[in-house]
Amino acid sequence: MSDSDNEFGIWEGEVATELPESFDASLYFIGRIRTPWTRRADCPKNARESDAVCTLEVDPRWAQALTHVESCTHLVVLYWMNRSRRDLVLQMPRHYGVARGTFALRSPARPNPIALSVVRLVGVDGCRLSVIGLDCLDNTPLLDIKPYFASTDAVSDAVVGWHATRKA
Amino acid sequence: MSDSDNEFGIWEGEVATELPESFDASLYFIGRIRTPWTRRADCPKNARESDAVCTLEVDPRWAQALTHVESCTHLVVLYWMNRSRRDLVLQMPRHYGVARGTFALRSPARPNPIALSVVRLVGVDGCRLSVIGLDCLDNTPLLDIKPYFASTDAVSDAVVGWHATRKA
Repeated sequence: MSDSDNEFGIWEGEVATELPESFDASLYFIGRIRTPWTRRADCPKNARESDAVCTLEVDPRWAQALTHVESCTHLVVLYWMNRSRRDLVLQMPRHYGVARGTFALRSPARPNPIALSVVRLVGVDGCRLSVIGLDCLDNTPLLDIKPYFASTDAVSDAVVGWHATRKA
Repeated sequence: MSDSDNEFGIWEGEVATELPESFDASLYFIGRIRTPWTRRADCPKNARESDAVCTLEVDPRWAQALTHVESCTHLVVLYWMNRSRRDLVLQMPRHYGVARGTFALRSPARPNPIALSVVRLVGVDGCRLSVIGLDCLDNTPLLDIKPYFASTDAVSDAVVGWHATRKA
């Protein structure tokens, strides 16, 4: 396996699978996310660690699609982690000594590197939305913006068992 | 504009834009979602309306990626609404008399028809996950499974203003 086309190596205990031979569907980038972070090492470890205001720059083609977005206090933002490898099934998160399944992790390395963040909307100026709650690199491609409905999206007693009982 | 390639027409008050000439990224379907609903008219209007147990059938290629998923009480499921048109910027949701921006709606019709549901995990049997909280058609392509972290994903006081103040 060659790792030369991405910045992630593979660590002891990690396992990669063979990717399918062809893709099944395709995406449009609808804009870019502007953040203060240009190197991975500078990004907050998770979005709750930062109060930085980031900007969703939506392509003018989609301007009308933002109608009524300003009435939302929170949004779901989907974006594309374009530098991640897609073949890992077991991963060793930094700082933990245990390999975990990709679908039990929020790691950007996954078959479809679609990241999801819940953000607070703090301002709208044309096609630019100011939001709090992102932790991604500057210029990350934007895929989708959705209204966050507490009635279906908020589960405050949800538990990720492996995380709740981890030692480190 | 031709609507012949999908089952959605365009309604008075709705607006479509011109799609970009090319795609920017590609997806693998990682499995299928099995639900009791084979016609759109049978689907629950939203996932909270149904206690039906649905099944995420993950392709065996990704089996190891499910390691530790069983420790999660809730998951985020991303799936592909492959029958939706992608060019609508203003849409007229059924039962409401107001056109709204695509990014203020959870409609499947959007530039990247990636749907998101928060589900409760009720069982794991190999590559089959039994979950409650989906409202999609049987055989919908599956894109991703993520652990749901209440600390970052649950915002119980979030408000979608246009929805909270709607008349119908």
